[in-house]
Amino acid sequence: MSINISEYTEDSFISRLLAKVPTGPGDGFAPGDDAAIIELAGARFLACADGVEEDVHFDLELSSAADAGWKALAVNLSDIAAMGGTPAAALVILGIPPGSGGLELAEDAYEGLGQCADRFKVVVAGGDVVGGPRLSLAVTVLGSITEGTPPLLRSGAHPGDLVCVTGCLGEAAMALELRLPAQAAHSWSGRLRRPVPRITAGKAIAAAGGTAAIDVSDGLLLDLSRLCSASGVGARIDPAQVPCASVDDWPSVEIPPDAEDRIKRAALGGGDDYELCFALPRRLHDRLNAMWPEDAPDFSVIGEVTDGRGISGPSGVMDPAGWDHVAAIGDERSMPDSQE
Amino acid sequence: MSINISEYTEDSFISRLLAKVPTGPGDGFAPGDDAAIIELAGARFLACADGVEEDVHFDLELSSAADAGWKALAVNLSDIAAMGGTPAAALVILGIPPGSGGLELAEDAYEGLGQCADRFKVVVAGGDVVGGPRLSLAVTVLGSITEGTPPLLRSGAHPGDLVCVTGCLGEAAMALELRLPAQAAHSWSGRLRRPVPRITAGKAIAAAGGTAAIDVSDGLLLDLSRLCSASGVGARIDPAQVPCASVDDWPSVEIPPDAEDRIKRAALGGGDDYELCFALPRRLHDRLNAMWPEDAPDFSVIGEVTDGRGISGPSGVMDPAGWDHVAAIGDERSMPDSQE
Repeated sequence: MSINISEYTEDSFISRLLAKVPTGPGDGFAPGDDAAIIELAGARFLACADGVEEDVHFDLELSSAADAGWKALAVNLSDIAAMGGTPAAALVILGIPPGSGGLELAEDAYEGLGQCADRFKVVVAGGDVVGGPRLSLAVTVLGSITEGTPPLLRSGAHPGDLVCVTGCLGEAAMALELRLPAQAAHSWSGRLRRPVPRITAGKAIAAAGGTAAIDVSDGLLLDLSRLCSASGVGARIDPAQVPCASVDDWPSVEIPPDAEDRIKRAALGGGDDYELCFALPRRLHDRLNAMWPEDAPDFSVIGEVTDGRGISGPSGVMDPAGWDHVAAIGDERSMPDSQE
Repeated sequence: MSINISEYTEDSFISRLLAKVPTGPGDGFAPGDDAAIIELAGARFLACADGVEEDVHFDLELSSAADAGWKALAVNLSDIAAMGGTPAAALVILGIPPGSGGLELAEDAYEGLGQCADRFKVVVAGGDVVGGPRLSLAVTVLGSITEGTPPLLRSGAHPGDLVCVTGCLGEAAMALELRLPAQAAHSWSGRLRRPVPRITAGKAIAAAGGTAAIDVSDGLLLDLSRLCSASGVGARIDPAQVPCASVDDWPSVEIPPDAEDRIKRAALGGGDDYELCFALPRRLHDRLNAMWPEDAPDFSVIGEVTDGRGISGPSGVMDPAGWDHVAAIGDERSMPDSQE
């Protein structure tokens, strides 16, 4: 089940909701950022809240309840990572479906959430359990801002900056598209079930002087367009430079003829990646490379920030709401010379 | 729909869940407290998280969506109040049911949440919207601890302390029991639909030297038993001293013969009051009285903390899990002389 509005309308709907409530005076905070910057008790820190619900954000046929628990925390840690922060504590509201099966699911979900918390040194500081029709986890994470390093916002990108992404995109979306069962233990399925927040990468990007960042949760084109919109800029990207899954990893013996297309589409529009997309002044590229943490997947330059609006590729506008309808990929592959 | 476990089992189930995750080293924090004490970025502050869901915590036949929005924030503010803190910022995960009706409900809920935020000077700092089968709001509130005043915990009550409650108990539970429609605009229904967190009262209790507090959300006997259990003490209360609704306010012309009994039962076990139950050294009674805020309903002394275990009344043990089965009320009224 999903709300009856497109992702685009969702952003403007959130703005409509926020117009009804008092919002913070905190400098740097915009409703659109991945985490809020809170000023309280003389301190500045980060806070974000994200929920996952069965059949919306996870499917118990493709993920275990423990995976769902991991993911509920990890997607929030990814928001802290996108701000260049360090997560510290979580509060969890667990929705438990009726019956004794629900209690088992709840315990399994907490098991996975605990594994994620252990791995990223986060404590569960509080929360609540409520009855609900389906398993759900609403998680808030609090994190610290590195002293002397301003948090990464979506709004700081400048024309001329490089557009970069960490890791490899589209694997989680392919696992979902192909409905890879958890038991298959395929690496794509692992990306869907247990996303790894890029915390050390986010801190390195902030420390090196990255100008803007967002985590890729709803698809590269949509999330990059949000970053551009917040920064009042555009971006020109080269889809061929976007690191994506290898067709050699296709999880069946028979590889369909459109496999490469599907993989590229998943990388550009699929979502659930929890990699970081960021803007970096060109002169800082080598510096970031030198500072890059060993435990993070390499970053790739996929384009540059422009003084236009929206995202363009080698063959023109790439519409995040329906980019695959404009046949960007077919065109791009037929025009390799136009690539940077 | 509710989870298939009693309130009592719920507490121990939460403990089982928390055993699966790393929890904080924060001094004073116990999973059982109303809010967690967080230490981050050199500051100490409060955080709590509570969710409300249609058909579990509110009923759209008895409350509007705006009421649900108010309540979702207010129940969290009540948790901050129970710690003696001052709420500052909220993060909201809104679950929106499908269809355009869902969007309207969501906007209405935000309207009510905004009214509560305005009244108690809280800002909405962030959050998320997700699709869901029913309207739900998962809210986290962050609040400050008053400088120089230790937060109120559940665990500080000492034998000999007075057991006190703010305001009047059971009105919300009566509105629910009688299914008073929102349109009736009855004061009992107002208590159910728009609970008022006792923030100024909580701060006064902390400042005056109250030793323990809890907000009354699940019924006085159950919540007092939680406070006693956390403090390792018992309590002896006099049900006749518990302020409860007036039978003159019974919302129909015909007042049933068991009206007074039902009102007293609601006051002791009904829940949804969002008043504060607290322990206070006897010598501080007058001091608290002198400091009591004008905007808070008076507090009443309803008993005293003992060095036993559990809660007793004039006629013996009052079992919070099924206190009304032990006929405490009938006995109590037949033995007025045993009351303090």
